[in-house]
Amino acid sequence: MSADFRTPRLFTPEPFAVGGRLRLTPAQTHYLKNVLRRKPGDDVLVFNGRDGEGEGRISALGRDGAEIEVARLRRPQTSTPDLWLVFAPVKKAAMDNLVAKATELGVDRLVPVWTQHTQARRLNLDRLEAQAIEAAEQSDRLSVPGIAPPRPLLDVLSDWPGERRLLVCDETGGGRPILDVLDEMGSGPTAFLAGPEGGFAISELDPMRKLPFSTAIGLGPRVLRADTAAIAALSCWQARLGDWHEQPAFRGTR
Amino acid sequence: MSADFRTPRLFTPEPFAVGGRLRLTPAQTHYLKNVLRRKPGDDVLVFNGRDGEGEGRISALGRDGAEIEVARLRRPQTSTPDLWLVFAPVKKAAMDNLVAKATELGVDRLVPVWTQHTQARRLNLDRLEAQAIEAAEQSDRLSVPGIAPPRPLLDVLSDWPGERRLLVCDETGGGRPILDVLDEMGSGPTAFLAGPEGGFAISELDPMRKLPFSTAIGLGPRVLRADTAAIAALSCWQARLGDWHEQPAFRGTR
Repeated sequence: MSADFRTPRLFTPEPFAVGGRLRLTPAQTHYLKNVLRRKPGDDVLVFNGRDGEGEGRISALGRDGAEIEVARLRRPQTSTPDLWLVFAPVKKAAMDNLVAKATELGVDRLVPVWTQHTQARRLNLDRLEAQAIEAAEQSDRLSVPGIAPPRPLLDVLSDWPGERRLLVCDETGGGRPILDVLDEMGSGPTAFLAGPEGGFAISELDPMRKLPFSTAIGLGPRVLRADTAAIAALSCWQARLGDWHEQPAFRGTR
Repeated sequence: MSADFRTPRLFTPEPFAVGGRLRLTPAQTHYLKNVLRRKPGDDVLVFNGRDGEGEGRISALGRDGAEIEVARLRRPQTSTPDLWLVFAPVKKAAMDNLVAKATELGVDRLVPVWTQHTQARRLNLDRLEAQAIEAAEQSDRLSVPGIAPPRPLLDVLSDWPGERRLLVCDETGGGRPILDVLDEMGSGPTAFLAGPEGGFAISELDPMRKLPFSTAIGLGPRVLRADTAAIAALSCWQARLGDWHEQPAFRGTR
């Protein structure tokens, strides 16, 4: 048994342990059998956000379900940095993209908020979760970010946990350069807030500027789209204060 | 006349000057007239990558063309940092996204390359250029990045301008943390190289490692998709060595 980048990697909500068996969902069974054309005996990797990464074999692959025999622990569970992304829902394609990229970039919790200029007024949380799971599977993460139910921005801010810094991607140009802010701030629980495509309303920006835990950050002279700003800010944070001094656990090329 | 974020902003390949008139393309005419529903006398902003940003009015808007009267120079021409992105074409949606985001992030030149594991074998340069123009118009840039015709990676490396640093997004985990590399390197002409979805081949990585102008960079423990890696690396460079100490030229909220 030697897993590599071709080995299917599946998230499961179920607990697992070495020597035990794990039941897959019908969707995962279909994916293994009909999309990837795997057979009983083939290698699979599994993770659930608690028990590390298990390496095992397909022990049963039927029409209505599959079973994995977990043979060894490939990696113990590790935690991702304590980083949240608060964001106003954007258009479907941009949102899928944002959730996938935030997951790759190691965000621990996604917090959708309604703002005054948010275009979308409905949010398919199952769809967001599916995007996050797929990105976690493909990026070798050992966890899937949690997704909070959507709430109005001002409600989220009114019961904000005060020890968590809130860095606001302020497209009005009022923020200080992001690396200056990160250098001053140092590590600790952090959240980035990315606005809606239409920007924040003044009735949102004004109270935000007065919050003791909130700082406006600048991302240069060009006006970035909301999802670009979020991805750029998360990247800078991970590079400066997060876990980007670490390397991938497994190296390999084709 | 007072342009704001609602004012149409158009790229033109034509030269313009204050007091002069500028002819728009049929596509731009259609966009102004039928999509944005503008009328003669309405404000428009124009830029061409050489003459700064002109502010003017629609002086004619017919079925087969439109004309802009340039009334004043809103901003003189500025240059973007000397930053290239060398990339292997990825799937269509991811590529559109990458070109748009690289433009927002201030890339000066896009250099598509064929690699051993590149899936796509054809590239629609007109489509890429349209994406770059739209992103430049919307991000308040004063230029559109140049797009080189696609060539094999090893050919591009064989006549590489030696004074330009090449930072390779190395998904095999061999690179040093990006900010460490940027701090050591300092400013100067730079290019990032983002691999294809399948990663570089060993026959590409090995010679690249020996090139005196090339350095492998690391982007943390998670395996990023090629487009995510490119966007993340460009963001870190702009924040650390580029122009992100500057602010947008015009501030405003809704």
